[in-house]
Amino acid sequence: MIALTTDFGLVDPWVGIMKGVIATRAPGVPVIDVSHGIPPQDVLAGALVLRHAAPWFPPRTIHVAVVDPGVGGDRRALCVETERALFVGPDNGLLSLAAPEPAVRRIVELADERFFLEPRSSTFHGRDVFAPVAAALAAGIDPGALGPERSDLEHLVLPEPRRLGQAVSGEVIYVDRFGNLTTNLPPDALPRHVVWVRVGDARIAGVSPSYAAAAKGALVAVVNSWGLLEIALRDGSAGAHLGLGVGARVTVDAA
Amino acid sequence: MIALTTDFGLVDPWVGIMKGVIATRAPGVPVIDVSHGIPPQDVLAGALVLRHAAPWFPPRTIHVAVVDPGVGGDRRALCVETERALFVGPDNGLLSLAAPEPAVRRIVELADERFFLEPRSSTFHGRDVFAPVAAALAAGIDPGALGPERSDLEHLVLPEPRRLGQAVSGEVIYVDRFGNLTTNLPPDALPRHVVWVRVGDARIAGVSPSYAAAAKGALVAVVNSWGLLEIALRDGSAGAHLGLGVGARVTVDAA
Amino acid sequence: MIALTTDFGLVDPWVGIMKGVIATRAPGVPVIDVSHGIPPQDVLAGALVLRHAAPWFPPRTIHVAVVDPGVGGDRRALCVETERALFVGPDNGLLSLAAPEPAVRRIVELADERFFLEPRSSTFHGRDVFAPVAAALAAGIDPGALGPERSDLEHLVLPEPRRLGQAVSGEVIYVDRFGNLTTNLPPDALPRHVVWVRVGDARIAGVSPSYAAAAKGALVAVVNSWGLLEIALRDGSAGAHLGLGVGARVTVDAA
Repeated sequence: MIALTTDFGLVDPWVGIMKGVIATRAPGVPVIDVSHGIPPQDVLAGALVLRHAAPWFPPRTIHVAVVDPGVGGDRRALCVETERALFVGPDNGLLSLAAPEPAVRRIVELADERFFLEPRSSTFHGRDVFAPVAAALAAGIDPGALGPERSDLEHLVLPEPRRLGQAVSGEVIYVDRFGNLTTNLPPDALPRHVVWVRVGDARIAGVSPSYAAAAKGALVAVVNSWGLLEIALRDGSAGAHLGLGVGARVTVDAA
Repeated sequence: MIALTTDFGLVDPWVGIMKGVIATRAPGVPVIDVSHGIPPQDVLAGALVLRHAAPWFPPRTIHVAVVDPGVGGDRRALCVETERALFVGPDNGLLSLAAPEPAVRRIVELADERFFLEPRSSTFHGRDVFAPVAAALAAGIDPGALGPERSDLEHLVLPEPRRLGQAVSGEVIYVDRFGNLTTNLPPDALPRHVVWVRVGDARIAGVSPSYAAAAKGALVAVVNSWGLLEIALRDGSAGAHLGLGVGARVTVDAA
Repeated sequence: MIALTTDFGLVDPWVGIMKGVIATRAPGVPVIDVSHGIPPQDVLAGALVLRHAAPWFPPRTIHVAVVDPGVGGDRRALCVETERALFVGPDNGLLSLAAPEPAVRRIVELADERFFLEPRSSTFHGRDVFAPVAAALAAGIDPGALGPERSDLEHLVLPEPRRLGQAVSGEVIYVDRFGNLTTNLPPDALPRHVVWVRVGDARIAGVSPSYAAAAKGALVAVVNSWGLLEIALRDGSAGAHLGLGVGARVTVDAA
């Protein structure tokens, strides 16, 4: 199975063309869209989506990820094998959150042009490199055949939670279509007894078990499906209500 | 076959993650997207889409519908079996237009946690409840195994056409991407000889057999593919032109 | 395999309903989305997308294309067979760029109503005509059974490059989600030694081998994956930066 995560959107035919290439070279292999709505060239958003989506796919899924502002330049292209999956994409940090070091078994640079389309454009490696390589892997080619083994890949630095006395400070790292604000704060980074969650001008009392615990139109803090503290607005958009997005500071006060 | 109708959009990975869960638990089962563009938390829009899409799917299709502002609270989750299909989703009215009472054979509450993911988040039952239950059904589990049978489900109230002497009054209930305005008026609710269709400040002469019967840039009233009276603008958007949307009054005058 | 190109968008259930019809009438046939983001009723954009996507699909793919402002009127509906593929859609020019005359083997008018849904709406031939016809073709029906053979199809006129002394003048014909501006200028229409590419108030030095050859925030001219001259902005949107879109003039100056 092949899964696709890109910033190509669904307005243009870029994703359809990649699927055409895969269907031509690996007929019958199922292809699932993870998301094509990564903001253009936002490598961090793509890496977060890949990290939080990949665990829900079957073992040995081939994840193709393309958020690739350096296409046609000298950035490397990789296949990263982990205990669970294969990740194919540019070596710009995009793969690094889904394939953290302890899980990595092998890193191979995509170098053997026999697996690429010919001729190869300088602007659309999704079509000319990553789709045909994924098709080859789906057809049973060993990753080792794709090129030389490498010892490392580019890493992204996610902002870390910070302790401020009894309080903990973090930030918004992802905003979804509902306007829910996902932070970089997992439950084990939070104080034992959360009194206030402060974001922008708002102050939310404690962490609730679910959205439904809040009144309609009220802000609520929950631990979300990514296992991270999230600020939401019951039946509305916290992002629009607060006028906040990625990078906004969130502070959690203890008893 | 599983069909998905949600308000998750396609920008975030929520739909992709549901498909990952389904592919893991029911490998090889085809999944079709009905729509993920239901406006956030708009249960009525979701119910209308489900009602008008479901009849075009193969018999025994498993329809998973998720527009779920009450997720994590005490709303029930259901599997509703009709003569034609299975509907899985929250019990908030979303399923009620597609599964009207005479067609319902069985209503089962999703209660047996063996069919859920473990642990279960309080924010994303699409992933943790509805996708794995659909996978179980696709794998042949009988709906009766999912939990206790129930006698009813939540119903939505659609606005009814009103007679005003010779005239009939209705309203816009759905606006599509073309700006076409679907009303709650089926042909048999209309006067035999329609003279005017009035909406906002506009007056349209009669009901036309097709969009193509109108001049470019002209408003036209037709019976659309849902079997409902629709106001359209030839080669344009009636919604934008009239500045009207869901809830706008439409009056049909007889001879 | 069936591939879909429409202006239906993905917010409404129109595409999902077409897939339901196909799944009912041709169970198990894979369906790929090329794009549903063609601007509403923009036949030229649809024709360009179809032309540049179709070559990447497997031989004998059945391409269904629906951008159909004349639905319900007297425009014909066609199945066009080329050396490589089948194209099904309205006869309004939409199919003409993907099926240029030398490649056409057969043009058949969709006339035999046995292959349509019954009753047939006047507003949604994607559901009632094109989807079931594609399903019939996928099930092995010969195109000749669909209706009478025709000798021609409607053609679109793409703007041609113009020579102005040593310079060449063209225009923007497509803008993608990245704001990249595709022109009607293939490399063999360009002067041998390009000195300047001029668009709006901007002047770009030469044609670069890739986006990556430009500094961040700089405009760059490249030959893109459609084999056409494109104006891009490194890590940004050329369309937004220049305030230009389809129809904007692009002039290429020679040494």
